[in-house]
Formats: sequence, C-alpha cells, structure tokens
Amino acid sequence: MSAPKTVGILGGMGHAAAIDLMARIHRLTPRTREQDGIRLIVDSNPATPDGNDALLRGGPSPAPMLAAMARGLETRGAEFVAMASSTAHAFQFDIERAIGVPFVSMIEEAGAALAARAPGPGTTIGLLAAEGCLHSGLYQSELARRGLSSVVPEGAARDEFMDLLHAIGAGDTGPRSTRRLAGVGARLARDGATLLLAACTEASLVLTPETAPAPLIDAMEVLAVAVVDYALGRRALPPPFAWTETGPA
Amino acid sequence: MSAPKTVGILGGMGHAAAIDLMARIHRLTPRTREQDGIRLIVDSNPATPDGNDALLRGGPSPAPMLAAMARGLETRGAEFVAMASSTAHAFQFDIERAIGVPFVSMIEEAGAALAARAPGPGTTIGLLAAEGCLHSGLYQSELARRGLSSVVPEGAARDEFMDLLHAIGAGDTGPRSTRRLAGVGARLARDGATLLLAACTEASLVLTPETAPAPLIDAMEVLAVAVVDYALGRRALPPPFAWTETGPA
Repeated sequence: MSAPKTVGILGGMGHAAAIDLMARIHRLTPRTREQDGIRLIVDSNPATPDGNDALLRGGPSPAPMLAAMARGLETRGAEFVAMASSTAHAFQFDIERAIGVPFVSMIEEAGAALAARAPGPGTTIGLLAAEGCLHSGLYQSELARRGLSSVVPEGAARDEFMDLLHAIGAGDTGPRSTRRLAGVGARLARDGATLLLAACTEASLVLTPETAPAPLIDAMEVLAVAVVDYALGRRALPPPFAWTETGPA
Repeated sequence: MSAPKTVGILGGMGHAAAIDLMARIHRLTPRTREQDGIRLIVDSNPATPDGNDALLRGGPSPAPMLAAMARGLETRGAEFVAMASSTAHAFQFDIERAIGVPFVSMIEEAGAALAARAPGPGTTIGLLAAEGCLHSGLYQSELARRGLSSVVPEGAARDEFMDLLHAIGAGDTGPRSTRRLAGVGARLARDGATLLLAACTEASLVLTPETAPAPLIDAMEVLAVAVVDYALGRRALPPPFAWTETGPA
C-alpha cells in the first residue's frame, strides 16, 4: 500500500468541530502501528466570521479567510481539503477556486450516502441543521440533484428547533435535549421523512441512531468515512476545481 | 483584551495526542461567543519516526521532521509552538533552533507545576512515562534543576509497567488496567513519591486523581493550561531560542 494522503482540515466553526472530525478519522483509521495513521494538517480558527450571521443577516463573509486558510493547508502539504462545518459549505466555491487540490465536500458526501441508503427515488430526508445552513438550501439542492426530497422544521417549530440548538451549543446536552430533538425529528417523520440527516454538531451531540425516531445519518461521520477512504486510496478523489469553458475567463 | 495568540501544535506521536491536547485547550478556554476561542494550527503526523525507537534502539531520529513541521506552523502564523508528546521533547532543542517563535515545553511546564505543588525542596515525584522518556531522563533532570527528586519503575516492575502501557495503548482501558497502574503508582509511593506525574497518554487515559494512590498531576493538562494562559496573555511567553555567546557560532 502506498503512503496515506495528507489531509487538510478547516475548522473552528465552532471550535470543537475540528476536534470532533479528527477523533472520528482517528477512530475509523485501521492501524497496526501508531505510525500507520493519516497525517492531518489542521487550521482551527474561531475568528472566522460566523457563516450563519453572513447568510442570514448580511454579516461579514468568512469566504476570504476560509480561502486563505485552505491555501495555507495546501502550501503545508495537504493533498486534499475537507471542512468541519456544514454551514460554511455555502462558501465552498470560494475555497475550491483558491486551491489546486481537491476539496471533499461534506454536502456532496452526505448526499451520496443518503442516496445510497434511500429505499428509492423521491425518498424524503428530514434535515436537522443550523439556520444558515437550512436557509442557504445547501442540502436541499444537493438532495434535489439526486432525485431526493427534503423537509425542514418550519414556522414556530423552526424557531423552537433553533432555540434548542442554541441551548445544546451552550452545554445543555442532557436527556431533556435528546427528547426535544427527537420530537423535532418525529415531526419531520410525520411530514414524510423516512431518513434523518444530522448536519450540525449540536444534533450529533444529543441524537444517536438509538434515540432518533427514524433512521439517522450523521454528516460529520459520513465526511470522516470519506476522508479515510480517500486518504488510504480506497476511493479515487474528486478532481480539483477547474474553470470550465463556459465559466469565468 | 487583545486577540488571542495563534498556537502551533505538533502531534501524531501517538496520533490521538493532538486531539487530546486540543480538547483540553477547548475545555479550558473561556468564551461567550464561539468566535472567542483560540486559533490552533496543527500538524498531526503519525509518520514521524518513533521517538522511543530512536532513543532506545538507535532508530531514525524524528528531529529533522519535527523541525520542518514546526517551521511550517510558524510560517502559517503560529505565535508559539507546543508539542503533544513528552518523549518527543528529547528533540526539543532541534525544534527550538528551527523556529523564531517561542517553544512552550511540556517538560518545563510540568516541572514548574510540580515545584509549585510540592510541599518542600527535596520532594520526590513518581514518574509514569514511556520507556524512551524515562530513559532520556527528561523529567528527572528538569526536576533535579528545581531541587526535586524523582523515582521511576525499575527492573521487573519497569518491564511490567511498559507491558501495561502497551496494553492500554492497544485499547485495554478498563478497570483492570486502572488497578494495575494504581499498583505501579503505589510502588512509587512506597519508594518515597508524594506526588505522581502522568506523563504519557496511556497513564492519563486510565488513572485519574480519584483512582491514583497519591496526588496526581497530568503533564498534558498542565501543558493545556499553559497554552491557554499564554494565548490569552495571562502569562508572558518564554523568549524564543537564541544562540548564546558561549554557544555555537
């Protein structure tokens, strides 16, 4: 087997997300000796402007900083780059065009995993994600592209869900949060969802396949599996970004 | 308050060590907003040659790779560098002279923490560390410099201790390992130790202040506290390495 590829990881949104992704990669990496692991070059930068604020309220865009961080990872030897935040994938294009190595998208990997798991075309996915992520339609358009439907919390249920994510983010990760989030998932199931996607750290923290009211796929776990597969050469990497003939000159 | 300093972290020896240090830094960082965290630039490289093999059996030295990794962290903006491995500090000088920013030494920080905690000069510290770390005398000389004594597992007890660390590293982190490691600590206490230092990931994993047979200080936790203090400007950083007039030209 050739040496594993070096992985670049963008994190800091929130701060523990890079640690979560690294721990999942570590757990998924087979090794006989400690030296058999995968090299991870990480930039965990909590000073990155808040993606939700940028997407919802016109706050400063994190795109220039994310692009600079990704270039730095490439300069240091990263052979591909991944990012531990669903919402920040709204700026995926800005990152991709800043680097010459492939960007492995959590949105696309989760879409592929859901399509593989869905019982058939038209299957409806219930999305548990942060406000900016839902608002930007990242997962909705990815799923539509694959012939899948999606439902998200709406109206008062949406406000309640966002309050819950905020409380979990502030440390309220007990059984009451699990019950409340399971309630959000159950409402999505009543709206037609046969699969749930946990696409934010807060949902991953309190909802497990055992406590979820419908089969649950975790976007961060899907990304970790993909990163390990690409790094170990089990799957061929997507090509790096290239301007198309119809794109900007 | 001025912006927190950017921290460079060397890891990969073993692979989970950087994750452990990052999680401790995250837990110790006060924040009101997610953006208030500390930027961590990390190179977790399990391909780094095994420090124990280099120190005990003349295997390839990790020094050139560690120096190159540290330079890379500085280039990316790290304002100081720390390393998540006691044993690799045998190569601290090679790292320090490769960079122009301060290196925060886990050995020196642990020595200072033990001196502050020791009831008086001559206090004996029991060292729970990997074979190469014990063999190189890193902690022993640091403690001697501060007027403290040290005891380490010797002879058959040392062999048994190393077997135990190996078993813990391979995943055997249950209560039996805790009992066995507490037994090693109890033997060091009988040899005069009034404080124990957990200076390897394996010891941190299974021994806590509650299960230890004597007051326990964890070197990785001490390093995490120091990193947060330096990053937030609560303490002044040590100066970067400089050739002295009596040193090499």
